[in-house]
Amino acid sequence: MPRYALLIEYDGTPFAGWQAQADQPSVQGAIEAALARLDPGYAQGARIAAAGRTDAGVHATGQVAHAELAKEWDPFRLSEALNWHLKPAPVAILAAARVADDFHARFSAVERRYLFRLVARRAPVTHDRGRVWQVLNPLDIGAMREGAAHLIGLHDFTTFRSTMCQSNSPVKTLDEIRIDQVAIPKGHEYRFHLRARSFLHNQVRSIVGTLERVGAGSWAPDRIADALEARDRAACGPVCPPQGLYLSGVGYPIDPFEAGSA
Amino acid sequence: MPRYALLIEYDGTPFAGWQAQADQPSVQGAIEAALARLDPGYAQGARIAAAGRTDAGVHATGQVAHAELAKEWDPFRLSEALNWHLKPAPVAILAAARVADDFHARFSAVERRYLFRLVARRAPVTHDRGRVWQVLNPLDIGAMREGAAHLIGLHDFTTFRSTMCQSNSPVKTLDEIRIDQVAIPKGHEYRFHLRARSFLHNQVRSIVGTLERVGAGSWAPDRIADALEARDRAACGPVCPPQGLYLSGVGYPIDPFEAGSA
Repeated sequence: MPRYALLIEYDGTPFAGWQAQADQPSVQGAIEAALARLDPGYAQGARIAAAGRTDAGVHATGQVAHAELAKEWDPFRLSEALNWHLKPAPVAILAAARVADDFHARFSAVERRYLFRLVARRAPVTHDRGRVWQVLNPLDIGAMREGAAHLIGLHDFTTFRSTMCQSNSPVKTLDEIRIDQVAIPKGHEYRFHLRARSFLHNQVRSIVGTLERVGAGSWAPDRIADALEARDRAACGPVCPPQGLYLSGVGYPIDPFEAGSA
Repeated sequence: MPRYALLIEYDGTPFAGWQAQADQPSVQGAIEAALARLDPGYAQGARIAAAGRTDAGVHATGQVAHAELAKEWDPFRLSEALNWHLKPAPVAILAAARVADDFHARFSAVERRYLFRLVARRAPVTHDRGRVWQVLNPLDIGAMREGAAHLIGLHDFTTFRSTMCQSNSPVKTLDEIRIDQVAIPKGHEYRFHLRARSFLHNQVRSIVGTLERVGAGSWAPDRIADALEARDRAACGPVCPPQGLYLSGVGYPIDPFEAGSA
């Protein structure tokens, strides 16, 4: 059966997460329902696989999934038809591409990119409610960058993963943490860009929540190195809430959405 | 009675506009209700005045209003108390300042700044739903900038104002139209920044809607000059919808929110 890769954007607010669950709205469930409506041959119970199974409330601007369909589709018409059937859910298919039978959205991926948006100001957010994590006081970006530098490279990230994490190993290579500061009316927004081949469960939220403690002055930057070295979940700072987190991109050896799809 | 200036941000989606109206939710009404709750001396029927009376669905990141209160307030405590009483409405007081009795949010203003966000892509917007105007095809930013240049300076803007406009004169000076392009996933966002001492009713939406026709190739850039010259509302392009529009700032001879408030 022909296999298609889908580039997906969603607002995670109304969903219990990416993964389909009984009696709970999920992004996967919304897309599978749309597939079933447009492709009558799409098997009931057929599942789509995603590069990152985002938690409840987490957003995406560059999620990738793949699906096998009963018939051949022009990729542009497939994305348009899916967007039609997805309405009014806040889920959009940004692109579709015909891929080889051995392409797997999760196992073929060689890079994941996440963005975390953290707003620091007294007045409540209005436009970005549900899309950022807000704290009340400005943060020291220099201290956060100094703390973050300890995490780059190959490490045992036991301290920074959920006790529910199902990954075989806590050893991962974190390729980049870039922290940008953006001016907003009477406040600051800090954007954390993290990049790795793969992440552990809650790793980004554990890292950002801990770096916030550094930015607030509660932790010295070097305490990040100590926490990492401890390899102990209890040494982690507070895990920050999901609504600031975005899966912003997934990398493959060949980008299925560039120019001539394979 | 002591007079306070308020710097205000809001998501215009749930409101019938700035201005209080019977039986309709308004930003003005929400703030007046909060004032009445925190200041028992605040007169029933007392009105606050704003620099710009935004239409239904229009947003603000830098609206300014003034209010007379019965008692003296520390400005920081006033903004905190108002934000408490405004919950859960998507309205935030970014700052408050004690101002002189002759300060008037509308009549003392010497500059208004508006932002219009226009997204061009096929896939529906998810995170920015209700906060941008979406068109399906990319636009020619060079052509839009060329068209916009015809509007800068002192002109009779009859073509670009609502027939409902109550301004005494259609002659206004438009100081700036800056158009920036921002990359978004599989699309483009165009940000129109307009600056003038004051604007006519629907002037920004009339200008951006007409410039979109230029960007789409339906209008030659020079047709903007012809439309302006016609001084005829019928020569205007389509007026674009309100949800992409933001009142982003108001200028005064002395900024009441800078450092030591007057």
